[in-house]
Amino acid sequence: MNKLIEREKITFHKVKPDPSSLEFGKYFTDYMFVMDYEEGMGWYHPRIAPYAPLTLDPSASVFHYGQAVFEGLKAYRTEDGRVLLFRPDQNIKRLNRSCERMSMPPLDEVLVLEALTQLVELEKDWVPKEKGTSLYIRPFVIATEPSLGVKASKSYTFMIVLSPVGSYYGDDQLKPVRIYVEDEYVRAVNGGVGNAKTSGNYAASLQAQRKANDLGYDQVLWLDAIEKKYVEEVGSMNIFFVINGEAVTPALSGSILSGITRASAIELIRSWGIPVREERISIDEIYTASARGELTEVFGTGTAAVVTPVGELNIHGKTVIVGDGQIGGISKKLYESITDIQLGKVKGPVNWTVEV
Amino acid sequence: MNKLIEREKITFHKVKPDPSSLEFGKYFTDYMFVMDYEEGMGWYHPRIAPYAPLTLDPSASVFHYGQAVFEGLKAYRTEDGRVLLFRPDQNIKRLNRSCERMSMPPLDEVLVLEALTQLVELEKDWVPKEKGTSLYIRPFVIATEPSLGVKASKSYTFMIVLSPVGSYYGDDQLKPVRIYVEDEYVRAVNGGVGNAKTSGNYAASLQAQRKANDLGYDQVLWLDAIEKKYVEEVGSMNIFFVINGEAVTPALSGSILSGITRASAIELIRSWGIPVREERISIDEIYTASARGELTEVFGTGTAAVVTPVGELNIHGKTVIVGDGQIGGISKKLYESITDIQLGKVKGPVNWTVEV
Repeated sequence: MNKLIEREKITFHKVKPDPSSLEFGKYFTDYMFVMDYEEGMGWYHPRIAPYAPLTLDPSASVFHYGQAVFEGLKAYRTEDGRVLLFRPDQNIKRLNRSCERMSMPPLDEVLVLEALTQLVELEKDWVPKEKGTSLYIRPFVIATEPSLGVKASKSYTFMIVLSPVGSYYGDDQLKPVRIYVEDEYVRAVNGGVGNAKTSGNYAASLQAQRKANDLGYDQVLWLDAIEKKYVEEVGSMNIFFVINGEAVTPALSGSILSGITRASAIELIRSWGIPVREERISIDEIYTASARGELTEVFGTGTAAVVTPVGELNIHGKTVIVGDGQIGGISKKLYESITDIQLGKVKGPVNWTVEV
Repeated sequence: MNKLIEREKITFHKVKPDPSSLEFGKYFTDYMFVMDYEEGMGWYHPRIAPYAPLTLDPSASVFHYGQAVFEGLKAYRTEDGRVLLFRPDQNIKRLNRSCERMSMPPLDEVLVLEALTQLVELEKDWVPKEKGTSLYIRPFVIATEPSLGVKASKSYTFMIVLSPVGSYYGDDQLKPVRIYVEDEYVRAVNGGVGNAKTSGNYAASLQAQRKANDLGYDQVLWLDAIEKKYVEEVGSMNIFFVINGEAVTPALSGSILSGITRASAIELIRSWGIPVREERISIDEIYTASARGELTEVFGTGTAAVVTPVGELNIHGKTVIVGDGQIGGISKKLYESITDIQLGKVKGPVNWTVEV
């Protein structure tokens, strides 16, 4: 145990929510991790403290100029009661890449992993064991300097909060979703911040998400901002297509989030002898492949839902039904493979799981 | 006075900062305006309260998904001691346009103007009278729902804080700035949120601003995200070029902020019989006009500095000196005209100033 991380004890434990009715990101555990940054001083006072509100000046930079980055990962309860993290090193590396893009100071990756592990260890009892449940881990950094000058903040706070969560889609896990291909709004463009996990990208996506919902769709598939032709990503997921027995997913062009489930999916699918191509894919190719009967599966990957089968796409007003609207073989195998690794039922590639 | 706005009294007044050393947005007055929103209930409890920190859950939506919009305007002290606001109705309208784009609930524009006026009236003593100083007014809205689900927040807080400020560029007001034309990073793209005054746009701009500073330039001139060819705006300003005796400024394409000083500048310059064209302008045209000796002035417009002359542009590595690096006639006349109206020395067009 790293003695640098101070601990403040609580005297009262919260009542844990009913694991059968966990809303995503609504309940939080007893403790959180906090660390502060001041220019000239660096990161200081790493501590595990009682979960409590933050007190910030109304002029704090995050409220005005939006320097805020985050990560999302999960701790899973194995059948024999152990607690596993899934590739936390990848999340921490990406957090630092996001910080760099947003002109925020880098974190010590070793200390963050230690903090995350200590916090989850302390809150082990909060990791639910019911099917589909997990303890969602949200590390995030916000700019705190009380100043309205438009510039990088001179102070920041890094926090980790924990939230027990149910299956992302409730009982309908693996029920294929309906996707609206958005051709009015865009999410990101090269030279922008689309590959950083920063708050503004999510705020910018809400109007299109609402439009898709109003039209009866579950999520938005974003196209590139320049030609509105090439596939980028889905609301909270990266996207894969299975065409003629090969998987294809948009290449990391600079405007797409580099998903950790995406990278894991590519590695696993290739390990089964199925080719995976990372390339620029136009939405017209997808439409044509479907018309020819060559598009057999579409699925999204992400931490929240792991693998989400797509049953229907609305492409410029035309409906494309994927695989009779049922979950495909690769999607199903991928979901089972990743969740089996996450739950410690099978051993994944080296270092994919870290026991707490 | 609108009796709906509750008032809480302070018992202790802050010491006002020395007006000769006002840093931008660093000092705040004794009071602030606050109003809350809950889904199903609307905006409620408008109040003028002592300036104090905000208390928010670590899971508050603004920290994670970035729903945050703001405005900036100023209250000016006239020579005879009155206090004037410059076109506050325009800021409030734009605030609501920003809210709409960011899936945030609209504000009652009449109530906001009333709140703003009452707050400035109460804090009248904080409006400095020294040359170039003013009381900066920052209305802003942030998402406060404690939930990690990616969706529009169900609760918000609207606040107005006031900060006495000096001249934006210190003693060097109207000293021409040096601008770096950015061709790697981009600010915004059509279909995105570039025309909303939302926090994420500013966070996204910081890395390019730092790069420009490192190269010895004051600010960045953004090009369009698609062709990296057409002029958009400068860091915190809209931009105007004077070519062959005519002023030209980028049209509001959807990715550019609709500046209130920009609109005022267009109206004033036209009133002098000088044509102003709002159109798509390529950076190559600017370079060519300069080479031909036709580019006589370049200036930025914005609330913070009103009019900022540009003395030098770096266009793809080539240096373009504008008007021998000195302030041009239209820039100077525009600065004087707008500030004369703001300070009540001359009467501007109808409703441009509102006395508090």
